[in-house]
Amino acid sequence: MTGPDGGASPGDQRRAVEQAVRHVAALIAEGHQVTLTHGNGPQVGNLILKNQLAAHVVPPVPLDWCGAQTQATIGTLVLNALDGRAAVVVTRTLVDPADPAFQDPVKPIGRYFSEAEARRFEELGQTWRRFDRGWRRVVASPEPLEILDAPAITALVAAGFTVVAAGGGGVPVARDAGGRLGGVEAVIDKDLAAAVLARDVRATVLVIATDVPGAVVGFGTAQARPLGAVTAAELRVLHAAGHFAGGSMGPKVEAALRFVEQGGDRSVITSLENIGAALTGESGTVVRK
Amino acid sequence: MTGPDGGASPGDQRRAVEQAVRHVAALIAEGHQVTLTHGNGPQVGNLILKNQLAAHVVPPVPLDWCGAQTQATIGTLVLNALDGRAAVVVTRTLVDPADPAFQDPVKPIGRYFSEAEARRFEELGQTWRRFDRGWRRVVASPEPLEILDAPAITALVAAGFTVVAAGGGGVPVARDAGGRLGGVEAVIDKDLAAAVLARDVRATVLVIATDVPGAVVGFGTAQARPLGAVTAAELRVLHAAGHFAGGSMGPKVEAALRFVEQGGDRSVITSLENIGAALTGESGTVVRK
Repeated sequence: MTGPDGGASPGDQRRAVEQAVRHVAALIAEGHQVTLTHGNGPQVGNLILKNQLAAHVVPPVPLDWCGAQTQATIGTLVLNALDGRAAVVVTRTLVDPADPAFQDPVKPIGRYFSEAEARRFEELGQTWRRFDRGWRRVVASPEPLEILDAPAITALVAAGFTVVAAGGGGVPVARDAGGRLGGVEAVIDKDLAAAVLARDVRATVLVIATDVPGAVVGFGTAQARPLGAVTAAELRVLHAAGHFAGGSMGPKVEAALRFVEQGGDRSVITSLENIGAALTGESGTVVRK
Repeated sequence: MTGPDGGASPGDQRRAVEQAVRHVAALIAEGHQVTLTHGNGPQVGNLILKNQLAAHVVPPVPLDWCGAQTQATIGTLVLNALDGRAAVVVTRTLVDPADPAFQDPVKPIGRYFSEAEARRFEELGQTWRRFDRGWRRVVASPEPLEILDAPAITALVAAGFTVVAAGGGGVPVARDAGGRLGGVEAVIDKDLAAAVLARDVRATVLVIATDVPGAVVGFGTAQARPLGAVTAAELRVLHAAGHFAGGSMGPKVEAALRFVEQGGDRSVITSLENIGAALTGESGTVVRK
């Protein structure tokens, strides 16, 4: 689900969720078992900003807490809009503390600040980098390995619930040297997490709903053409050749590929309006083994 | 569960939760099916304060969002500490939009501010009152009627999960004139919500864990005596006579009473350390029909 603009008022966010959920409700009415995930970029950006603005009074909470918070708020909006047999499971995504992403945090989050402000936040242990428009915090975006709460999601789906889970990629957690679970200061790509979620709940189809009708080969060139049915092997070659490098399609193609490569029946990249048609194969980019 | 101090660092909060969860883990190890709820006062206070301090930059989110946020963060800490077959269900509590509490909000939340600051927040639609120590926001605390997400909790318990639910009294929601569900600007008493949760998931025993060994008759007087086994009828008379009016015991006694009066087998008010003994009837104030 594409997220509403975090700069919008809570009422606007509620209306945006209601609009988006209609398409999901139609699938549920047709009898599909749906596990739903969502982004959280604008919302988590707001939470991080509030933590930054209040840091002189209230100790900022770690990133994994912010992610958990957005699962609950966006999830509640979805539940209220669906108003049926549905539940939000707060979802943790396991990452490897030795993931190389932790050595070289590159994912920018939150707003631009001045160098002086950035230096102050660095004293709290954060990593900040200079960009063209100013200083911005960068964090690790490690690989999602496993959806720890998949058993709860699966149990609820089996009991007839539509489940909202793993929003914003899930709450990043890792095991320390002693095996103890704890949150880690990271963000997880929501599309890659969706692929792991689909695998771990043994979904038949992974639908990646976005604001375009599908992936495009040669995007931005004169040879651009929309991509319909494609095998995972063919798509892997196109992806490696850099066809989806620009914009935000790269992680979506990678997620679609991983789900099918790891045993999933089918991945579909399509627009939110077309997710119903996507399930019958008439819409978007459809990836099969 | 008594909540950790919200002024404490996230690491301190984590350690406090780990400490508290040990007692719950012991119950689970003995084979009890446990549904767990918790307070959120200090944590929601911090969130409200951050919203207030950042209000000039980011639109403050409503109170029901803050409550949802604390369910996810405290719940995740509990899950990581339990590290077993457990899940957090984001839980909504239904209230009546015609509840008289909405006409006369009296529950103070957050910190004290100056009159000038209070007036600015009033312009955002909030209600503020003058207290001895300054101005403080007051909100409605309506009666919890139903735990809307009880079916999901029950399904998970049946599948062998320990469930964390209804933290902070649950996310307050109501149906509008058109029947549509939406969050409402309110806080729900966590003990009263726990009684509704216990009823709606058909629990056998409601255990209210606090930081004292039980309820005390004549608290603060020379005739003070700890209350052990008591019938609901006897306790109702003592409660009506004002024996538990001081401090925070009142809502706990009311919750214990309601659960038994509405068909529950037993309510126990005891200290967190004694919840194991409470289940075998050897500890705290035990209320039966």
